[in-house]
Amino acid sequence: MERIDGRKTNELRPIRLLTGINRYAEGSVLIEWGETKVLCTASVEEDVPPFLKNSGKGWITAEYAMLPRATQTRKKRDIHRLKLDGRSSEIQRLIGRSLRAACDLSLLGERTITIDCDVLQADGGTRTASVTAGYVALALAVKKLFAEGKLEQYPIRQAIAAVSVGIVQGVPMLDLCYAEDSKADVDMNIIRTDAGGFVELQGTGEGNTFSEQELQQLLDLGKEGTQILFEMQNEALKQANA
Amino acid sequence: MERIDGRKTNELRPIRLLTGINRYAEGSVLIEWGETKVLCTASVEEDVPPFLKNSGKGWITAEYAMLPRATQTRKKRDIHRLKLDGRSSEIQRLIGRSLRAACDLSLLGERTITIDCDVLQADGGTRTASVTAGYVALALAVKKLFAEGKLEQYPIRQAIAAVSVGIVQGVPMLDLCYAEDSKADVDMNIIRTDAGGFVELQGTGEGNTFSEQELQQLLDLGKEGTQILFEMQNEALKQANA
Amino acid sequence: MERIDGRKTNELRPIRLLTGINRYAEGSVLIEWGETKVLCTASVEEDVPPFLKNSGKGWITAEYAMLPRATQTRKKRDIHRLKLDGRSSEIQRLIGRSLRAACDLSLLGERTITIDCDVLQADGGTRTASVTAGYVALALAVKKLFAEGKLEQYPIRQAIAAVSVGIVQGVPMLDLCYAEDSKADVDMNIIRTDAGGFVELQGTGEGNTFSEQELQQLLDLGKEGTQILFEMQNEALKQANA
Amino acid sequence: MERIDGRKTNELRPIRLLTGINRYAEGSVLIEWGETKVLCTASVEEDVPPFLKNSGKGWITAEYAMLPRATQTRKKRDIHRLKLDGRSSEIQRLIGRSLRAACDLSLLGERTITIDCDVLQADGGTRTASVTAGYVALALAVKKLFAEGKLEQYPIRQAIAAVSVGIVQGVPMLDLCYAEDSKADVDMNIIRTDAGGFVELQGTGEGNTFSEQELQQLLDLGKEGTQILFEMQNEALKQANA
Amino acid sequence: MERIDGRKTNELRPIRLLTGINRYAEGSVLIEWGETKVLCTASVEEDVPPFLKNSGKGWITAEYAMLPRATQTRKKRDIHRLKLDGRSSEIQRLIGRSLRAACDLSLLGERTITIDCDVLQADGGTRTASVTAGYVALALAVKKLFAEGKLEQYPIRQAIAAVSVGIVQGVPMLDLCYAEDSKADVDMNIIRTDAGGFVELQGTGEGNTFSEQELQQLLDLGKEGTQILFEMQNEALKQANA
Amino acid sequence: MERIDGRKTNELRPIRLLTGINRYAEGSVLIEWGETKVLCTASVEEDVPPFLKNSGKGWITAEYAMLPRATQTRKKRDIHRLKLDGRSSEIQRLIGRSLRAACDLSLLGERTITIDCDVLQADGGTRTASVTAGYVALALAVKKLFAEGKLEQYPIRQAIAAVSVGIVQGVPMLDLCYAEDSKADVDMNIIRTDAGGFVELQGTGEGNTFSEQELQQLLDLGKEGTQILFEMQNEALKQANA
Repeated sequence: MERIDGRKTNELRPIRLLTGINRYAEGSVLIEWGETKVLCTASVEEDVPPFLKNSGKGWITAEYAMLPRATQTRKKRDIHRLKLDGRSSEIQRLIGRSLRAACDLSLLGERTITIDCDVLQADGGTRTASVTAGYVALALAVKKLFAEGKLEQYPIRQAIAAVSVGIVQGVPMLDLCYAEDSKADVDMNIIRTDAGGFVELQGTGEGNTFSEQELQQLLDLGKEGTQILFEMQNEALKQANA
Repeated sequence: MERIDGRKTNELRPIRLLTGINRYAEGSVLIEWGETKVLCTASVEEDVPPFLKNSGKGWITAEYAMLPRATQTRKKRDIHRLKLDGRSSEIQRLIGRSLRAACDLSLLGERTITIDCDVLQADGGTRTASVTAGYVALALAVKKLFAEGKLEQYPIRQAIAAVSVGIVQGVPMLDLCYAEDSKADVDMNIIRTDAGGFVELQGTGEGNTFSEQELQQLLDLGKEGTQILFEMQNEALKQANA
Repeated sequence: MERIDGRKTNELRPIRLLTGINRYAEGSVLIEWGETKVLCTASVEEDVPPFLKNSGKGWITAEYAMLPRATQTRKKRDIHRLKLDGRSSEIQRLIGRSLRAACDLSLLGERTITIDCDVLQADGGTRTASVTAGYVALALAVKKLFAEGKLEQYPIRQAIAAVSVGIVQGVPMLDLCYAEDSKADVDMNIIRTDAGGFVELQGTGEGNTFSEQELQQLLDLGKEGTQILFEMQNEALKQANA
Repeated sequence: MERIDGRKTNELRPIRLLTGINRYAEGSVLIEWGETKVLCTASVEEDVPPFLKNSGKGWITAEYAMLPRATQTRKKRDIHRLKLDGRSSEIQRLIGRSLRAACDLSLLGERTITIDCDVLQADGGTRTASVTAGYVALALAVKKLFAEGKLEQYPIRQAIAAVSVGIVQGVPMLDLCYAEDSKADVDMNIIRTDAGGFVELQGTGEGNTFSEQELQQLLDLGKEGTQILFEMQNEALKQANA
Repeated sequence: MERIDGRKTNELRPIRLLTGINRYAEGSVLIEWGETKVLCTASVEEDVPPFLKNSGKGWITAEYAMLPRATQTRKKRDIHRLKLDGRSSEIQRLIGRSLRAACDLSLLGERTITIDCDVLQADGGTRTASVTAGYVALALAVKKLFAEGKLEQYPIRQAIAAVSVGIVQGVPMLDLCYAEDSKADVDMNIIRTDAGGFVELQGTGEGNTFSEQELQQLLDLGKEGTQILFEMQNEALKQANA
Repeated sequence: MERIDGRKTNELRPIRLLTGINRYAEGSVLIEWGETKVLCTASVEEDVPPFLKNSGKGWITAEYAMLPRATQTRKKRDIHRLKLDGRSSEIQRLIGRSLRAACDLSLLGERTITIDCDVLQADGGTRTASVTAGYVALALAVKKLFAEGKLEQYPIRQAIAAVSVGIVQGVPMLDLCYAEDSKADVDMNIIRTDAGGFVELQGTGEGNTFSEQELQQLLDLGKEGTQILFEMQNEALKQANA
């Protein structure tokens, strides 16, 4: 089966990680993942949520939103409906949980790093793009804190990257674009660390269920994809520091 | 390792499904799952969301909320914070997606079935209890519609049940209570059909990652657990119709 | 005139007060009053609202809500309309005022007891059921505080119970169910203390007015009804302590 | 006992009803009741709430709000707390219910009359002032509709007036000002029709209970007070038409 | 060209400033400007917004709202739409900025003066009426603070007055009423100090643009109008102190 | 006096208009104006607001928002405060009014064009950048409609551009960056058409007033600046069509 954009089943779309694109943020990345574009900034605040006051620990959290015309038809802003979009709420919780796994929070000091992921243009995979670029923004902010002597020990434990996989018309494939995603039978987001384990696994049979064998095929594709993403993250961080 | 309540690692807590506990709802179930208690009602409305108007299809959706004192310390009601709790938002999307997999929506007609899951008391596993009992409430409501001649074909395709599994102090185990959940390294919700496939899989390494081998152990526990739940659901539905 | 459910005009529906139904709350009661079912929990917090800080006084407040399918047709949750229902707002103010009359707040210490009244199923009289069961939940919480040595003096001054009365097709009657309430000409909620006085009196001529003579008949019915409720409350408290 | 402002126990404060004070409203009244000042407008809209569509019936509703500096200390506007004040919610429901009793809604046609009661300055009794002046604004709007030939039959059935009564330091008295209200043991709002019956009765024992004998004394004072108010309303309506 | 109400192009409508109309506010003014009526109160609070804590400086802010029937057709209250009206938001920012120009905030001490402008009836020019009357309310509150010895130096630096001007059917004119405003090609609000400079200038070509020559004509009219307003403010302040 | 970035008093910062940067929007522009970056999209919807239904006329409206880290310190998203920022509200009303002046709405048909202006990075002048780039996005969307044969006549009447001017330490200057703006005595936004007139003029004496002579100097700078902007807009539109 030919994929809609001619890719092989185990092939990622072209991906670019542009760092330093915001002059104020402690870390910033624009990720262009095929036609999906997400702007990620990491903001450091010398404060923690109430449940961590006087714990000596830090916090990492994420917020996710789409610009109104990130999608084919314009979507009303949350503020005009006075409700945080349910899908955004679900996604930003996933990003936050995933990125907390990157870092030993007890080494961060009582500060909060907020990763803002704003989708400028969406073509599938915005949550995995946000995690992947969000990690880079986070790492840049942490490196800056460390370079400024604000941290006694370097708190990043492992890199985190995410990719979507799915089964489309019976064929397991890596990195679904929107057109593929919208007709997928199974859709899974795989979030892994460069040390080799899973951080999050979210698989959904949309209009279908999936077997353990299919799960295995999807996990293999996900491992292959995240392996390449870890290299891209490394390269982006090296160039940012050069 | 002894579990906190003396269970075996592959043992469910005592579970009861009490049907017909609401005199108005088309389907209703009170599930008592250990100390977790969730009231599920299925409400039929002869209307669909805008995106399904004139499609001939029906819709199934879910809402999830906790009573203020379902938890150890009282939690403010959402309406007083004017925000739907992010966790509730995530959970109710999961319940809705899972239960839609039970049913051929094109056979439901242009009507909506809303599954309300209100947690009276929480001790871990409220979302899996909601899916498991929600399926029974849904099935009761659909049976009622069918018995009233409102459906040409019976639209339920498969039963849906959910259970949590996790790794606590290195040991994979089935059905975590709150005390176990709060110290788990890995926490996974497994949602399966009685036909044998996965509907949803949501695994999170909380403070740790998990390997493929561990994933396999958790999936095996999940299959064992859901197998028992399908029998309980069957039994509850039989008695409700008797 | 025969009442819709065969009761005498001065007869209450069957009422049950089940205490200890929530494992976390300091006091809890499920009241089943005919087909009306309300879950009441009393939660103690070691804090007071701003206007009582450093006053040495405590506070008692109430919140009232209905589950979406407590009624014949499903009602949207407040959080989705972003507005506390006006009727709920009125009712919870009444419950709070009434229960504060039970207690010498200056003996409670600077703590707040919140009575949550969540209606699981409604068939008329939910506000009077909430007050009646709310008093029992409150008394249980206060007894617990007293038993734990947190209060120097026992602060409960008197029991509080509430019942509805009304005039239906010209006949004054006690304890209206929903079917009676919806065709009543006059509807009155009577809240009394076991010491003999009125705490609150809320009478409404719905589609009609009422005379002083009718008022007297309604008050007499109310006294008769609350007398029985005080005994039930006593019994429930005795058994809870046994 | 001398009252704080020298009045007799059965004496109303000086009251003025100024009609026609808003050039756009179908009916308008500024009531000055002692130092309490409330602006009431009646607005006619050719539409009814959803539950009355195609019923042929009309609707009367009320909204009540205080200007921020109507009170001794400035109060935040509702819109800045994003919540309708609970007290306002309770009061406007009372005003609406009371004024609906004035009118045969089935003669009003499918239109809504909204009575806006905005408190410019508060010194006790704002809700009874709102009902009393609200009736006049309503009557003016209905007269206008009738004069314009929009109503087949004149729908006002009876006048409605309201007054507060209370027990202060053991003495039953009519029309409490704020200083009296804030130290009252019992506080009651009496809403009557000029035909002689009660429309609403809301009595609260604030920090005390009340006996049937005390209730009788309060009702007598209320009857005396509303009798005078009916005359004032009549006079105001006559002058407005002159 | 004859104006709609017979005025000359450089003629203001009849204006009255009634001070002391609220018994609680530190300063209060009812301005009647033709058929436009705005109630302005100045409230002093011994607190400042977070960004001024420990700065030694004070703050002046304004809130603007319309009663629902201030306009020809009833307008829903903001609280029922849960949104501050965009136009109100724009206007109250303008009033606040303008009145801060009247006062040396560093001489005010760490206190906030809130100017509430509530429009009782609108017939064009409500924002300029609010600024003009708001200045008088502010001055009265400041004089009171000064008289009470709470200020070391008198902080008012200059009077502030505002007037609208516009071009209607090609003719520049002063002080547009609503009927004129709604067919104006150009509409401008001019806010000046009695010391001779502009504080704010907001001109809008509604359905047309304007030239520099037209701008000059409008500024001249504005100067003429504000000159008269400064005298009225002076007179009102003198009488209030008398 | 040397400007902070070495510019002459009548010199604009470097400006780039990048069109076609969003694949879904009918018109899109990224404007880079010094360090200020705003993403503008024009979205066409085949619908109009209620007040224009069946009028045959179209509508142009604008929304303005900042990403949380567009500024030096992170700013909470509006949705988390549940309030549209007052400044954003004021700005988006200005953008909408200005762009409506570009177009003969009666030639647009019953459709709405929404200009979304999202600030990626802010360094002063975001509202004037939004108007200037918003015009280009609007023109692109209108050209597309015209090319598709959906408009009988081309409805754009004139180009609209905006620039800020101000007086900093006594010196009138063009195009203030944030550092200049924050110490400016007078700040003015000038919005003009390429046909030569003013569309909007908003001048504010921040901590100072301004004279007519100063106003004239500012207007001259504004004319000089907008003249260059009209050329840039023309160039961008030509290249977009090439």
